[in-house]
Amino acid sequence: MCFKHYHAEEVLLGRKMEDWLRFSVCYWHSFCGTGGDPFGFPTLCRSWNEGAPMEAAKRRLRAAFEFFTKLGVKYYTFHDRDVAPEGSTLEESNRNLDELTDLALQLQTQTGVKVLWVTCNLFAHPRYMNGAATNPDCHVLAFAGAQVKKGLDVARKLGAENFVFWGGREGFHSVHNTDVGAELKHMASFFKMAVKYKEKIGLKCQFLIEPKPKEPCKHQYDYDAMSVIAFLKHYGLEGDFKLNIEPNHTTLAGHSYEHDVVMASAFGMLGSVDANTGSPDLGWDTDQFPMDVRNTTLVMKTVIEQGGLQPGGLNFDAKVRRESTDMEDLFIAHIAAMDAFARGLRNAARIVEDGIMAAMVKERYSSFSRDIGQKVDEGSATLEEMEAFIKENGEPKTTSGKQEKYESIFNCYI
Amino acid sequence: MCFKHYHAEEVLLGRKMEDWLRFSVCYWHSFCGTGGDPFGFPTLCRSWNEGAPMEAAKRRLRAAFEFFTKLGVKYYTFHDRDVAPEGSTLEESNRNLDELTDLALQLQTQTGVKVLWVTCNLFAHPRYMNGAATNPDCHVLAFAGAQVKKGLDVARKLGAENFVFWGGREGFHSVHNTDVGAELKHMASFFKMAVKYKEKIGLKCQFLIEPKPKEPCKHQYDYDAMSVIAFLKHYGLEGDFKLNIEPNHTTLAGHSYEHDVVMASAFGMLGSVDANTGSPDLGWDTDQFPMDVRNTTLVMKTVIEQGGLQPGGLNFDAKVRRESTDMEDLFIAHIAAMDAFARGLRNAARIVEDGIMAAMVKERYSSFSRDIGQKVDEGSATLEEMEAFIKENGEPKTTSGKQEKYESIFNCYI
Amino acid sequence: MCFKHYHAEEVLLGRKMEDWLRFSVCYWHSFCGTGGDPFGFPTLCRSWNEGAPMEAAKRRLRAAFEFFTKLGVKYYTFHDRDVAPEGSTLEESNRNLDELTDLALQLQTQTGVKVLWVTCNLFAHPRYMNGAATNPDCHVLAFAGAQVKKGLDVARKLGAENFVFWGGREGFHSVHNTDVGAELKHMASFFKMAVKYKEKIGLKCQFLIEPKPKEPCKHQYDYDAMSVIAFLKHYGLEGDFKLNIEPNHTTLAGHSYEHDVVMASAFGMLGSVDANTGSPDLGWDTDQFPMDVRNTTLVMKTVIEQGGLQPGGLNFDAKVRRESTDMEDLFIAHIAAMDAFARGLRNAARIVEDGIMAAMVKERYSSFSRDIGQKVDEGSATLEEMEAFIKENGEPKTTSGKQEKYESIFNCYI
Amino acid sequence: MCFKHYHAEEVLLGRKMEDWLRFSVCYWHSFCGTGGDPFGFPTLCRSWNEGAPMEAAKRRLRAAFEFFTKLGVKYYTFHDRDVAPEGSTLEESNRNLDELTDLALQLQTQTGVKVLWVTCNLFAHPRYMNGAATNPDCHVLAFAGAQVKKGLDVARKLGAENFVFWGGREGFHSVHNTDVGAELKHMASFFKMAVKYKEKIGLKCQFLIEPKPKEPCKHQYDYDAMSVIAFLKHYGLEGDFKLNIEPNHTTLAGHSYEHDVVMASAFGMLGSVDANTGSPDLGWDTDQFPMDVRNTTLVMKTVIEQGGLQPGGLNFDAKVRRESTDMEDLFIAHIAAMDAFARGLRNAARIVEDGIMAAMVKERYSSFSRDIGQKVDEGSATLEEMEAFIKENGEPKTTSGKQEKYESIFNCYI
Repeated sequence: MCFKHYHAEEVLLGRKMEDWLRFSVCYWHSFCGTGGDPFGFPTLCRSWNEGAPMEAAKRRLRAAFEFFTKLGVKYYTFHDRDVAPEGSTLEESNRNLDELTDLALQLQTQTGVKVLWVTCNLFAHPRYMNGAATNPDCHVLAFAGAQVKKGLDVARKLGAENFVFWGGREGFHSVHNTDVGAELKHMASFFKMAVKYKEKIGLKCQFLIEPKPKEPCKHQYDYDAMSVIAFLKHYGLEGDFKLNIEPNHTTLAGHSYEHDVVMASAFGMLGSVDANTGSPDLGWDTDQFPMDVRNTTLVMKTVIEQGGLQPGGLNFDAKVRRESTDMEDLFIAHIAAMDAFARGLRNAARIVEDGIMAAMVKERYSSFSRDIGQKVDEGSATLEEMEAFIKENGEPKTTSGKQEKYESIFNCYI
Repeated sequence: MCFKHYHAEEVLLGRKMEDWLRFSVCYWHSFCGTGGDPFGFPTLCRSWNEGAPMEAAKRRLRAAFEFFTKLGVKYYTFHDRDVAPEGSTLEESNRNLDELTDLALQLQTQTGVKVLWVTCNLFAHPRYMNGAATNPDCHVLAFAGAQVKKGLDVARKLGAENFVFWGGREGFHSVHNTDVGAELKHMASFFKMAVKYKEKIGLKCQFLIEPKPKEPCKHQYDYDAMSVIAFLKHYGLEGDFKLNIEPNHTTLAGHSYEHDVVMASAFGMLGSVDANTGSPDLGWDTDQFPMDVRNTTLVMKTVIEQGGLQPGGLNFDAKVRRESTDMEDLFIAHIAAMDAFARGLRNAARIVEDGIMAAMVKERYSSFSRDIGQKVDEGSATLEEMEAFIKENGEPKTTSGKQEKYESIFNCYI
Repeated sequence: MCFKHYHAEEVLLGRKMEDWLRFSVCYWHSFCGTGGDPFGFPTLCRSWNEGAPMEAAKRRLRAAFEFFTKLGVKYYTFHDRDVAPEGSTLEESNRNLDELTDLALQLQTQTGVKVLWVTCNLFAHPRYMNGAATNPDCHVLAFAGAQVKKGLDVARKLGAENFVFWGGREGFHSVHNTDVGAELKHMASFFKMAVKYKEKIGLKCQFLIEPKPKEPCKHQYDYDAMSVIAFLKHYGLEGDFKLNIEPNHTTLAGHSYEHDVVMASAFGMLGSVDANTGSPDLGWDTDQFPMDVRNTTLVMKTVIEQGGLQPGGLNFDAKVRRESTDMEDLFIAHIAAMDAFARGLRNAARIVEDGIMAAMVKERYSSFSRDIGQKVDEGSATLEEMEAFIKENGEPKTTSGKQEKYESIFNCYI
Repeated sequence: MCFKHYHAEEVLLGRKMEDWLRFSVCYWHSFCGTGGDPFGFPTLCRSWNEGAPMEAAKRRLRAAFEFFTKLGVKYYTFHDRDVAPEGSTLEESNRNLDELTDLALQLQTQTGVKVLWVTCNLFAHPRYMNGAATNPDCHVLAFAGAQVKKGLDVARKLGAENFVFWGGREGFHSVHNTDVGAELKHMASFFKMAVKYKEKIGLKCQFLIEPKPKEPCKHQYDYDAMSVIAFLKHYGLEGDFKLNIEPNHTTLAGHSYEHDVVMASAFGMLGSVDANTGSPDLGWDTDQFPMDVRNTTLVMKTVIEQGGLQPGGLNFDAKVRRESTDMEDLFIAHIAAMDAFARGLRNAARIVEDGIMAAMVKERYSSFSRDIGQKVDEGSATLEEMEAFIKENGEPKTTSGKQEKYESIFNCYI
């Protein structure tokens, strides 16, 4: 049980592996997960869960830092309600959070482990069943707002490099009872309040929205990368947010594994990646550890091409299967996934360094760097010029797309 | 074989049925369709297809107007290449188009039938196999531009009320050989040229983009309503375009039948509807005639709520099954679909008139019309106010979403 | 809140509505359901859940019978672990079950409500995480066997008319760790033991297998109707089992809503129906109350055509949404679904009585009732005869499938 | 453009690579394919298509054998209508077929290339639009029978090692106009006639059915491996047929890539494999060349475990993309796919030779080789024994499924 491919200090394309990959362990799946599923009771017995809630929470946090350190991962991510139990009032919840984040800060200092991102859990408590920022009852929205205010304070306290919004209940189960226009407007207001407060407290981290198409709702407004981009641009929020892309959500939206990573990057909006996978034949979020090297290669190629993910990273939003009940399975899963991404990085680095595919692509689009193509590229051409060009030059010649050749070359790197 | 529910002159909510529904027959499926599919040869024998190409084209057009008139539909839609055969040069194609649209104009005048929308076929000819506006070869883009220039001229000549862009090849089959960023930029340039030329020739019609997620490409950039809205806003084109939503495309994108109609309307972008359906268990565009009254009711409810579709309409982008080889099947299919939409309209009108569901929804969101809710709605609230509100008011009360009650009431109208 | 379409005593096609429909309330969703989902805590507060486990179990059972009676439903269904809490040993679990089923028997006698079917929960307890009858550890299979033995005893005690096996964990998450051949063989052995014990104790009820393709496993062996039929025939079990078809499972398997009902009936294997629905755009089991009259009509048409479902019925394996937190929502949901099925029954009865569609179908296949067609139908024809027929008769004539006409006529009944 | 991984003569596990893989080129995609798709005209210009039909057919056949030989592939597959154009009567079609198969026989003798399988095209001609063996008109069924008779004669003449039935139109588009029971019965009669004639003429080849769930029909009766097995067993045909599994069809049926290969093999019914792939995010048959080494490894592992595919093989039922217009793309695609399968074979051979995973699996099921487990495995246990065992032994212990460990080990071989 040791790394076969991941070597934190190895330098590729001028940067250390750990700096390209920026791995993060997620707290909820790996330390709060029980193995329960909609058809079965918990299966995972973790000694850190014993005892009274606050006591268990501290034991759990210490166990997690021990795990981070043993594994050699520098970042972690968490929801507010993962680290500290929710109290019966907001004030009590906040006190719990203060106490636990004091401990987290101390453990961070001791170990050097940092927070990749914090997020607020605005979906598990029954009060959020009809939505948080899009709840028809403003009282619920207010609760979510209060919770986010505290979350932002925590992010500052712990030096989080990013802050994520995942709107699991921001959508609908039925169009019949929903005022879509009102809900979208309220969601935008909610985000604006968060931006304003972030600026007020001088919090420097990157805000991220994580798209997901469905589950738990029938439809979530943050369906996929393009849906979120449309929303942000419509409400003038595109300068304040980037996207945290989870491939398992991308495939649930009907896209290929790499699609949202590629599209978000093309729009300059790729902020971070939740490194997991689903099964293409399953219609729910299985949050499996990513093991397919083809997929990790494609993701890392995009990451390299945009110059890295920082301040984002690769967060293992993945859980060991509920049947993987041994404590060692937690290590095996993370190590295997880190190796899969290390292989992906190495493959992608070779693709980029060799430059064979890039040169083929460049040649493919070369007509846009001269004459009429250049005018189109710059946006100064007209339809009249297009017509004149065709009247002079006639039919274009046929050019093979050569997909199988590209696939064949790509396969040489896998 | 007569209408059981559709009565063109019947008035509902102050408007004639035909004005709410604005039905249109599509030329390609109903007059150019052959019944061929990827696994089988043509099955439909239409007498209008006999003879030399230009002769057949005229016979076909006359047959179509006879059909429109017998059916009592006031609009039709077509691609440039549907009405006139493509020649061996652009000039020849344009001459063919001139000759046929002269005839179309004459038939329009004789019958009073009008053009709901024109579109250019930028996907069937082999030159477009790698895209039209997003082709890696600018020579192809230029051809598409020349074709659109002529298409806009035709739209003006025939008084088309809308002009549609469907980017069936604007996307990719493989990320390996594709520069997504370049392609999106070129597509935007292309649309800008079209807008400029439209203004130059004083063409008044509405521009529409029709989203489709996949097929024929693996991925099309116009995946769904939200993808197109994101694209338009990113490139500053949102004022020049609305959307033509086809439910069969919506379901292929992983949404419910009504989803894109509802979302486009919520963003003020619903321009027209391609009235068809697919099968939820099938993964390709079956373009069936819409027969499900639940679906037509939901679409018409949104149409009524936004005050109608004009200058858009309900275009039957639907084909009789390739096994429906009798000429009468073309009538049966249109009549049954028109009846299905007439029932949908009548149901929706009753829902709107009764106002029971609307009142329930209004009450559901009533907290946003006062106090802190109003501030959120107006966008002037802060997280600090949210926190203060919760500290004062504590937990929100639980409110049932009552989905089954809404469904039960909705069922009373079906 | 009263029935608009369901009238228990109304006679259709010579049988009372309640006898065609044989409605059943399911105990787990409606009385044990909490509203928890994979992303959220319980939302439903039911007073019957208060107090110590056995006490609550009794209060819950009494509440359920009150509900059955008020609703006017004659049947209920349950898992062994729904009615009585699992103890720390098999013996304790069995004692709990004895105590609760004594009460159930008493309440059945008082109210006249009967058991449509019993089933054993062989999926929720952690011991079953890797399967029950297909567990790699025979110790677990043995536990499942002991549980089923008791379940069959309970079925006899309560006069259950059917006994259902749902193999939620009988499948795999990964082919890597699975011996598919061994697991199938063990599953067959398991069923054979159940058949033998059933005969031994003189239990008269119908055994049913309920197919489901996936969830909770990545793949379940009982994927769909045809998979189960293949399995049963392979192991010589087809005489001892019929199928309990759940449409939400059917659609998850990639079929249309009615598909497995139709196919199971065509193979003479349709035993009972779990009357629920999912959303075609969602990839998990939403277990919604069935509200779509098109669907209920198609199901009831098949039921009528095979002469009814008895001893099976229509079991509402459906749960109120977790947002439907009012107690009345449980009534609303059942009443609306019963009305939807009553409408479906009435529509189907009219379709069958009118006989228009049946006559069209009969005519369509009429060539098989004479000459060469009859020989094919009887299985006595040869390829040589086929060739001779074609040499004599040449090409067949083209016959329209007339799908739109059928759809149009069907729509007249909806 | 040469093989990097495939070496025909290299021996693995005691058998030559070419004997494990038994590659076959398919005639229809690679020599009859035009590049047309439902939205576009043909793109592929092949010189062998010029001239009159019979002349072109011969040129095409010669070109194909040149390709087989250059590529170094020993097998090919074809439909009757691929090699010889259909005439206006059955007699003419048969004469065309005789003439072309004379040439084929001659080319086979010259080159040593053999027929992996023949099949009859019972789906492309308009007469088959409503089905062939399941057509409501027995006249059409008779035509299909006559065609299959000739196809079997051709199979014998050319020494085909298998004969495939793919029922692309054996299913329905609408339940409304379909008598499912009658159609299934007729399909069984049809297969029985074929079996009888095969025996009569002493044809030795293996009969194969190729499942596909949908497309071109809404539903095909041969949905997937299990559906076909159910059908065969129901009609007593299971001894006469095996399955030809196409992974692109498997994924369309909602399964994982390897599912039907694994299941068919577990039931002793895996006869041959159509070596292609689809995209999991697309809902139609893209018939792409298989390039994913994870997939080829899983398929070859099953093939090795069942001792090979002979007399079946790996048939490239795959087409170059319609954008891959260069002649060399045909070579590139086949070579890349053969390399992908050669890598898969090598990986699988190492997995099998090392035996690490197999030993883990064996250990996992070891409880079934002794005591009560053995009795279950042999089918002689009873529920009473199960209960007694649990009363004596209590709860089973928890055993991790160790999925991530298996995945991690599997990844070491990729």
